[in-house]
Amino acid sequence: MLKLYVAPGTCALASHITLAETGADYAVEKVDFRTNQQNSPGYLAINPKGRVPALATEHGVLTETPAMLAYLAQRFPKAQLAPIDDLFAFAEVQSFNSYLCSTVHVAHAHKMRGHRWASDESSFADMKRKVPETMSACFSLIEQMLRGPWVMGERYTICDPYLFTIAQWLEGDSVDIDSFPKVADHFKRMSARPAVQKAFAELAA
Amino acid sequence: MLKLYVAPGTCALASHITLAETGADYAVEKVDFRTNQQNSPGYLAINPKGRVPALATEHGVLTETPAMLAYLAQRFPKAQLAPIDDLFAFAEVQSFNSYLCSTVHVAHAHKMRGHRWASDESSFADMKRKVPETMSACFSLIEQMLRGPWVMGERYTICDPYLFTIAQWLEGDSVDIDSFPKVADHFKRMSARPAVQKAFAELAA
Repeated sequence: MLKLYVAPGTCALASHITLAETGADYAVEKVDFRTNQQNSPGYLAINPKGRVPALATEHGVLTETPAMLAYLAQRFPKAQLAPIDDLFAFAEVQSFNSYLCSTVHVAHAHKMRGHRWASDESSFADMKRKVPETMSACFSLIEQMLRGPWVMGERYTICDPYLFTIAQWLEGDSVDIDSFPKVADHFKRMSARPAVQKAFAELAA
Repeated sequence: MLKLYVAPGTCALASHITLAETGADYAVEKVDFRTNQQNSPGYLAINPKGRVPALATEHGVLTETPAMLAYLAQRFPKAQLAPIDDLFAFAEVQSFNSYLCSTVHVAHAHKMRGHRWASDESSFADMKRKVPETMSACFSLIEQMLRGPWVMGERYTICDPYLFTIAQWLEGDSVDIDSFPKVADHFKRMSARPAVQKAFAELAA
């Protein structure tokens, strides 16, 4: 059985929702960031990066959200979570998710994780101040890319839970989601999905 | 015919080498960063992100290196650039490339592109000072992950040109590649590949 390592408030939610969408049996294990469990020897043996998410499979452990989402879509084709038989459409899905991972998540991370890229308190404060601007710029582009009602158009894909996960962070980043009407509409529609509610219930348990 | 938009010294090299590895016909167009051509109306119509690489196909334009590399591997299966028939192995390839994109490239970018995430000169200098440390930490992990002789073991994959592209930046980042023997060996073996030499010749033309 697949086992997903998660922590509340992190990007692990995208994989968690996607697992719930597949209809497969899975287990969830919460990693306690308050006690720095992500850097404990036990967890580092699972994921040497000391981060979540990680997905334990019968073949080994996978990390990195875009790779995990594509894997779940390919492994559970009946759930129709990506256009896996259309090379270009699949590449568009992957491109969107790669942008979320390498640009949008990274922009957000400069609010609380400035120590990853700098050493001085003044730099951390400077980075933090810029987050509303960078996140707004990212979401202006996403607003253009979002075809509606789902990211890729009529069909729900693995882009949707990932966008929802990051859009959740906008309020804390002092960005008004209503400035991006398609994103705001998408967020509401995602919130109502049973898989999203299942993932939140499992996180709260 | 596929057309790749590139600029010397950028991560576009990974896709460029991969195109050369496919054996397919392709065109290369250099975007002139010195004149800020990447933000010209003409180029923004191709790639609204104002970045390279971008790959123009008969179906539309693709961006984001991990997505483009997977697309090329799937589109040209005879070139055997990824284990596309083994879901888990393919996910491992994607995970490695996602790590290069979202963590390693991002760490490097803090040397010259600090303005993306901060506003003060002092922050830029602070970020720049930390790059040798962050890139060393990334390559310590890569040294563990690299199976040898290629990233994924006996078979060359789309991980290899991407790692080579980023490993090229180590010297400028004040990191000694010889601290990472497997990476250094990989770098030499990559440099000798005809596809790499073809890409460099096309960039210099």
